[in-house]
Amino acid sequence: MTYCVAMRLDAGLVFLSDSRTNAGVDQIGTFRKMTVFENPGDRTMVLMTAGNLSISQSVLQLLHDHVGSNGTTIWTAPDMYEAARIVGEAVRAIHVREAKALAQFNIEFNVSIIFGGQIRGETCRLFQIYAAGNFIEAHDENTYFQIGEAKYGKPIIDRVVTRRSSLDDAVKCALISMDSTLRSNISVGLPLDLLVYEADSLAVTRFVTIDEKNAYFQMLRGTWGAQLRQVFEGIDAPTWQPMPDADDQPVRMPLPAAVPPVLAPPVLQSMAQQSGDGK
Amino acid sequence: MTYCVAMRLDAGLVFLSDSRTNAGVDQIGTFRKMTVFENPGDRTMVLMTAGNLSISQSVLQLLHDHVGSNGTTIWTAPDMYEAARIVGEAVRAIHVREAKALAQFNIEFNVSIIFGGQIRGETCRLFQIYAAGNFIEAHDENTYFQIGEAKYGKPIIDRVVTRRSSLDDAVKCALISMDSTLRSNISVGLPLDLLVYEADSLAVTRFVTIDEKNAYFQMLRGTWGAQLRQVFEGIDAPTWQPMPDADDQPVRMPLPAAVPPVLAPPVLQSMAQQSGDGK
Repeated sequence: MTYCVAMRLDAGLVFLSDSRTNAGVDQIGTFRKMTVFENPGDRTMVLMTAGNLSISQSVLQLLHDHVGSNGTTIWTAPDMYEAARIVGEAVRAIHVREAKALAQFNIEFNVSIIFGGQIRGETCRLFQIYAAGNFIEAHDENTYFQIGEAKYGKPIIDRVVTRRSSLDDAVKCALISMDSTLRSNISVGLPLDLLVYEADSLAVTRFVTIDEKNAYFQMLRGTWGAQLRQVFEGIDAPTWQPMPDADDQPVRMPLPAAVPPVLAPPVLQSMAQQSGDGK
Repeated sequence: MTYCVAMRLDAGLVFLSDSRTNAGVDQIGTFRKMTVFENPGDRTMVLMTAGNLSISQSVLQLLHDHVGSNGTTIWTAPDMYEAARIVGEAVRAIHVREAKALAQFNIEFNVSIIFGGQIRGETCRLFQIYAAGNFIEAHDENTYFQIGEAKYGKPIIDRVVTRRSSLDDAVKCALISMDSTLRSNISVGLPLDLLVYEADSLAVTRFVTIDEKNAYFQMLRGTWGAQLRQVFEGIDAPTWQPMPDADDQPVRMPLPAAVPPVLAPPVLQSMAQQSGDGK
């Protein structure tokens, strides 16, 4: 699998991707999932892919010189919306070429793409493109997109990131989100590609490949894990009161009950009776 | 959907379940997903279900008086392994009865079960039972099971819970895990059923239904969220050095590069050239 996350902030864009691909657990490889389309001063666009590697590589190959239905390419598109539409067209072209043959082997046409960046004259924009070639755009109230193994790393982003977050905070959060995913899902792995795009720079100014030796990532993982446990230990334990009579249906802590109210429904009630008979 | 988690500790067992079911987002209901089978002094067993509600309710109905292939019932099974086998048999019986008819409506036979407890003469045991009726047991190195929307709440458990955790710590962790899931997935909802089984009590001594008014859960959510953000803000921001020459392939922070090395492969290289021509 894969985990990629991108955030759209007032200050710019943050892109983070892992580099593990696997066909089952016995065929694991390292493939970069982040591709940069840069024409300094004119446009800088970043594309990250998840799903079937053969499909996403074909989409990239096609994008290289794909001419959109209205004659523009990803290098000449007047705005990011048009560029995203061209990416979607490339996905559809590969679908026409591959889907039927893959289906004969019960292989789903599975690819999802995060695509974002800036074209001169526009602000930063961020899109998620689906296997059907359709896409959605991130707006102020929805500042990030994830593809691949997204769920493990979602709660921390929901808790801390807003459009007003600084690029540094977004980087911290993206790396913590990735760390949680790495710990809980073996199909996501190092090294990571991290690209930070500063709004209006129209160039890649901050990029790094992060492996296990990366000092900052080591510090972040260690500090976060340790302080999380500290906070955890600092939270009061629940307190339980002596049992009220069995009929009492508990509605809130610390009030416990003799028997959970879920025994109330007839079938379960009679189970309780049977358990009585069983004595 | 659903989120249920159970933990097996030296001190006993912790079970936590939400109560939301949905068929799409326009048909959402509240159903308890935790059922207790208790014969005080002899056995106390807890069963939690996820998946298709009609299937899990049928399994429970059947379990009520299901006689296992070797003549024992869930109330007379000599050990938890045998009791889990009887639950698996009930799942298979419902599969025989329902699966084909559901398939005609493209409804998958989807049910997953967490089943744990203690029978006199044994220690506490915890099982996860699949739709095929087969099951696995939690051991010391794998202290918990989750069913339903499991991923959001997994990282925090992986970080803090071991078999040696206290029941109170396990309760705290389970509630935090549930909180992260509630925040990130609308298909999981309050109220929650929380049951804490103290090893060798052979009875339900601690149970509570938790809704939004529950003071302890309110405190936990507030404190955890706030202190998490505090820890987050306390972590150093990354520092970026001035750009090295473009050929330099970055290998660690804070060393940035002019162009991500992912541009190296031929196809992407030529993209870069094309972007150059595009100037």
